Amino acid sequence: MTASHTIELTGASLIGADEIPGTRSPFQATDPATGAALEPIYHEADEAAVATAAELAWEAFGSYRHTSFEQRAAFLDTIAAELDDLGSVLIDRVHAETGIPAARVQGELARTTGQLRLFAAVVREGSWTGARLDTPNPDRTPLPRPDLRQRKVPLGPVAVFAASNFPLAFSVAGGDTASALAAGAPVIVKAHSAHPGTSELVGRAIRNAVRAHNLPEGTFSLVFGSGQTVGIALVTDPRIRAVGFTGSQQAGIALTAAAAARPVPIPVYAEMSSINPVFVLPGALADRAEELGSGFIASMTTGVGQLCTSPGLVFLVDAPGADRFVRAAAEAVRAATPAPMLYPGIAASFADGARRLATNENIDTVAVADTAPAQAGCSGVPQLFVTTGEQFLDDHQLQDEVFGPASVIVRVADVAQLTAIIDRLEGQLTATIQAAPTDHAHARVLVDRLELIAGRVLFNGWPTGVEVGHAIVHGGPFPATTAPSTTSVGSRAIERFLRPVAYQNVPEELLADELRTGNPLGIWRRIDGAVTQS
Amino acid sequence: MTASHTIELTGASLIGADEIPGTRSPFQATDPATGAALEPIYHEADEAAVATAAELAWEAFGSYRHTSFEQRAAFLDTIAAELDDLGSVLIDRVHAETGIPAARVQGELARTTGQLRLFAAVVREGSWTGARLDTPNPDRTPLPRPDLRQRKVPLGPVAVFAASNFPLAFSVAGGDTASALAAGAPVIVKAHSAHPGTSELVGRAIRNAVRAHNLPEGTFSLVFGSGQTVGIALVTDPRIRAVGFTGSQQAGIALTAAAAARPVPIPVYAEMSSINPVFVLPGALADRAEELGSGFIASMTTGVGQLCTSPGLVFLVDAPGADRFVRAAAEAVRAATPAPMLYPGIAASFADGARRLATNENIDTVAVADTAPAQAGCSGVPQLFVTTGEQFLDDHQLQDEVFGPASVIVRVADVAQLTAIIDRLEGQLTATIQAAPTDHAHARVLVDRLELIAGRVLFNGWPTGVEVGHAIVHGGPFPATTAPSTTSVGSRAIERFLRPVAYQNVPEELLADELRTGNPLGIWRRIDGAVTQS
Repeated sequence: MTASHTIELTGASLIGADEIPGTRSPFQATDPATGAALEPIYHEADEAAVATAAELAWEAFGSYRHTSFEQRAAFLDTIAAELDDLGSVLIDRVHAETGIPAARVQGELARTTGQLRLFAAVVREGSWTGARLDTPNPDRTPLPRPDLRQRKVPLGPVAVFAASNFPLAFSVAGGDTASALAAGAPVIVKAHSAHPGTSELVGRAIRNAVRAHNLPEGTFSLVFGSGQTVGIALVTDPRIRAVGFTGSQQAGIALTAAAAARPVPIPVYAEMSSINPVFVLPGALADRAEELGSGFIASMTTGVGQLCTSPGLVFLVDAPGADRFVRAAAEAVRAATPAPMLYPGIAASFADGARRLATNENIDTVAVADTAPAQAGCSGVPQLFVTTGEQFLDDHQLQDEVFGPASVIVRVADVAQLTAIIDRLEGQLTATIQAAPTDHAHARVLVDRLELIAGRVLFNGWPTGVEVGHAIVHGGPFPATTAPSTTSVGSRAIERFLRPVAYQNVPEELLADELRTGNPLGIWRRIDGAVTQS
Repeated sequence: MTASHTIELTGASLIGADEIPGTRSPFQATDPATGAALEPIYHEADEAAVATAAELAWEAFGSYRHTSFEQRAAFLDTIAAELDDLGSVLIDRVHAETGIPAARVQGELARTTGQLRLFAAVVREGSWTGARLDTPNPDRTPLPRPDLRQRKVPLGPVAVFAASNFPLAFSVAGGDTASALAAGAPVIVKAHSAHPGTSELVGRAIRNAVRAHNLPEGTFSLVFGSGQTVGIALVTDPRIRAVGFTGSQQAGIALTAAAAARPVPIPVYAEMSSINPVFVLPGALADRAEELGSGFIASMTTGVGQLCTSPGLVFLVDAPGADRFVRAAAEAVRAATPAPMLYPGIAASFADGARRLATNENIDTVAVADTAPAQAGCSGVPQLFVTTGEQFLDDHQLQDEVFGPASVIVRVADVAQLTAIIDRLEGQLTATIQAAPTDHAHARVLVDRLELIAGRVLFNGWPTGVEVGHAIVHGGPFPATTAPSTTSVGSRAIERFLRPVAYQNVPEELLADELRTGNPLGIWRRIDGAVTQS
């Protein structure tokens, strides 16, 4: 544990510039590889701490939202630099708290800082503000045409709920935080209790950046605690104006209901559950059945199956090669090494879910990873099941996400049955098609239906691995998310925390730079509907 | 009643290509000027008719969403042309059913056809699809960068709830219908029962356009009936994927709750209530108190006060001119001619609301329009009240919308009290500042706060009159709407019915035209984040 030696962790919530020790239940992180408790002891914050953070955030909002694009971008860049500076201290702590191998943590750190820098670039580029100017016409009859200008403004302070499975990229300085700060919104993060030390390290890094840029202290706070108390207190605080969440369907729906029941409801952008169906067409099976079978298991076991985009269902059209696909997948499962899951609770849930599949009479077990009994305790043991298209259509429970390294192969009679199945699928983050050129006529039918139920449609790859960029969508219809018209990854994520405002006949000197006639920021805008940079 | 002579009205719901007479309660339109019932008799549709319309809409969605941009634009242009062809038949029927003067109806028809043509232009221009292409990099390590492309797809069939107060522009072929059809979504309109003949005429015009363009019959349906039965049946039908609504807060909130309680929740874009505060600063009072006083009443009485943007609160900073403003306003109220309101129910609600104000002990009556008792029955009698800033801060009921020609002047001690008041105001469609150049320091503070609570901030004008264009926002924080990040008027309204989808490594031949490498549609896109038309 180099981390606690190098940077002292206090176990306190970071409320603006203060450190406020929690007054409620104590908890500690656990090293999932050893079961050892990790120092220090954290305590859950109480409602008073949340209210203080919200008050500071509201105060900060008044000035933070007026920072220039450049100031905000520089702030995001500094957060990224602070995280880079933490380097191995951070990586070691993440590894200790989550069991994620160091190389993977390194990759996730790069993704996280890359994301912060992407949003810095987005803020600087400026078109996120959606500036539009409609030219006035004082001579129009019967009424003059007014001078109308539109830009987007931030909704207000944002509450971010960190996920367990990406302790950096979907946590304290993850995509929700980066995009909200980019939008001009102060952020209060509710840390995930499975990696509190990581959360505190990252929270301190953000706080350093707040100080370095002389931003108001309430621009960022970090609170520790459970969803029931801290989470509900955050979502129902009148000063919180939007919520970003990544986690379970149950928690996401509970927060959404709490937000909808407020006197003034607010949006909850919850990314929840997805079983990420894969469709393997005959031509692909004929060409590369074995490669697909083992590739599927490599994707299923990535991150010990604890990725939102982990493939939980594979539909195999009955065709030559289908048996070879199943054999190759079974072999890969048996050869897979069980690895520790993120924390004991998630391992227990997975064991339950896998047991439900194993005992479902509509399903057969194909393979389970070879493992010594001692290993099985906290580990995610990869396992693979099989059923038929008919049975799948009869048993809606087969669509329930089992979070961890387990999947069900569904052997489907033909493409007609496949389309019937797609029409019964719930909303998904991803849908994957494995197809040879000879499959394209069928693939076209699939794309046409899958784009209605998924946020991302992929060909000849695997859904795990979410590229951070401009064209990515990490979202999808309910229950994948509560807000299908958004994405939680990629540059478009900033849109979640903004709303448009029109300014009618407002004097030039009272307008924001992005709306001034001369376009002093040189950004892309719409003049009378036409895209222009002039 | 020239309409019923020229085009036979049947009183039936238009379900796809069929005319299905309702099986439930009969109702008729009333001429608000005479109280006479207008032929024909309509009957409310039942749930079976709604289900048929939804099934047809879902079937139509499969092909309608694949129409080319040009096909969809031409369809919208034809609807506009069909409405123009109806001409005086339509105008006379609107006037008869609503009491709106013919010249105003003429203007609203022009606005409605203009809106349809605006969305035709938006569809053709193509950037609504939000196309983004991120360049692949097969050589990137450790993993190649995939080919990612993003576009927006329609959510699915949309239910539109027509408003009473704009029988054309916010009704059967209004902005919600135009923007949904533009997005590629079939539409089912629930007609407002106050203008059924108008609704049928416009519904038939849309159906003519559907036929003329060989579109599937389910592209459009029109159902008659109450919100409780037809409305809830529509919002809870699994084939309906989004809702556009303009109407009362009570109805909007009920539909939103029904939509949230579905197994798969859907968005409800409800534009509800707004009291549209106006802030009059000292310099403006010094310059033009009388002009402002009478201008305020002209705005308040436009459309007999039945506009969503009608100014219901005017905050007068205590300064020379304030008394003159009040006197001029009072005089204008007394001289105003009471006019028939849209239908008996709305007149009764207004009378109740005005009585609540008149009997509120925190308020004094300034003036009531001079009127013969006979006139007062179905008429909206303009009236004006006054209170103080302190009393306003004490009495939250003063923020309740009274739909009709009544307003409250709030005499405020100073700009400091004004900002305290703004912090207590609910979400609004509009907020208006009357300011001279000498007021700009104060106006800056107001703009800064008002942009957080309103969809549109205006200077030195009146909030009634919503310009349809690209920069307009007709929206705002709750309770003005249920979806503050959208607008129900202007080109951006199309965004409500779309969601982004990413396509990863999808073969070129399976991609939509808007995502093809060569940009065959010549639309504005983002390549690696940069805006370009190449």
